Amino acid sequence: MKVGVVIYPSKKLQDFANSYRKRYDPYYALIPPHITLKAKFESSDNEIAEISNHLEEIARNHQPFSITTKKISTFHPVNNVVYLKIEPSSELEKLYGDINSLAYGNPPEYAFVPHITLGQELSDGEHTDVYSQLRLLKLDFTEEIDRFHLVYQLDNGVWNVYETFLLGEK
Amino acid sequence: MKVGVVIYPSKKLQDFANSYRKRYDPYYALIPPHITLKAKFESSDNEIAEISNHLEEIARNHQPFSITTKKISTFHPVNNVVYLKIEPSSELEKLYGDINSLAYGNPPEYAFVPHITLGQELSDGEHTDVYSQLRLLKLDFTEEIDRFHLVYQLDNGVWNVYETFLLGEK
Repeated sequence: MKVGVVIYPSKKLQDFANSYRKRYDPYYALIPPHITLKAKFESSDNEIAEISNHLEEIARNHQPFSITTKKISTFHPVNNVVYLKIEPSSELEKLYGDINSLAYGNPPEYAFVPHITLGQELSDGEHTDVYSQLRLLKLDFTEEIDRFHLVYQLDNGVWNVYETFLLGEK
Repeated sequence: MKVGVVIYPSKKLQDFANSYRKRYDPYYALIPPHITLKAKFESSDNEIAEISNHLEEIARNHQPFSITTKKISTFHPVNNVVYLKIEPSSELEKLYGDINSLAYGNPPEYAFVPHITLGQELSDGEHTDVYSQLRLLKLDFTEEIDRFHLVYQLDNGVWNVYETFLLGEK
C-alpha cells in the first residue's frame, strides 16, 4: 500500500487552509491539510511495522517546536501550486532530514520547502488569478508541532492515519 | 471541537466496507470505515490533552485482540443502518467499557453492538433493497486489532486523527 509521513497542523490552521483548498485543490477530499515530510511510496504490511519503529525512534530524538506561517507563495513556474509557506525552521529541517535518511521510498525530488498546499493542478490562468488574490492576504499563524503521522492510502484515494508519533522523550 | 474514539480496521476491511459505503453511506467522504468506541462529544484543546492521557493508560492495560466479522446486519426498525457485525468479543467489550467509563461526553445511548456501518439514512424502501442484497454475502474476516484512535472533526465535517494508542505495554 502507499504510505507517507506528514504533519497535520492545528485544527485552526487546517480549517483556514481548507477554506481555500475547497475551491483550488482537487485533493481536498482525500487528505486534510498537511506538511509533507516524506512523499508517498509503496510499502508492505511488514515493512510498515519496521518503518513505524524507526519513526518512533526519530520522534524520541526530536523535541516539539514552533512553526510560523506569514505568507502565501507559489512553486510556479515549476508547478502551479499555491501554498502556505512555513518559515524556515532548523528543527523542522532536521526532522525532515532524519525521516528522509531512512532507506524507504525514493530520495526527495526537490529541496525541502516546508509548506501546506492550498491549490494545485491549476491552469496558468487560474494560477495567476488565485495567486494574485491570495498573496495579498495578511497572515500570522504560530503554533507548536508536537507530533507527526505515518499515513496510508485506501483504495478510494483517501489517506488515513496508521500511527501518530509524539516528539520528545516520554 | 468535536472528538470521538474509534478503531480503524485493516486497509483490507476498510476497502471492503468502502465499496458499499460509497453508494449507501452519506458520511462516506467524511470518515473512513470504523468501529465507534466513544460517540462524538464536544471538547476543548486542554481537555483533549487530558483525554489523551487517560486513553494512553487504558491502551496500556489492554492487549491486542482479534475481531471477526461474518455477516451483515441491520438496526432496523430502530435505525435504517446496515452494518458489518463484529462477533462478540470480551476484549472489545472491556475496552469499550473502560473508555466509556471516563467522565467525558454523554453516556452511550444504546447497548454496545460493535459494528462497521455500511449504509445509513436509508429510506425504508432503500433499506429493504440494500439489506436483502447484502445479507446474502458470504464473509469471513478475522484480524488483529492492536490500536485505537482519538479523532476530531474539522469545520468541513471531515474527521482527522489526533492520536493513535497502541494496545499493550511497550
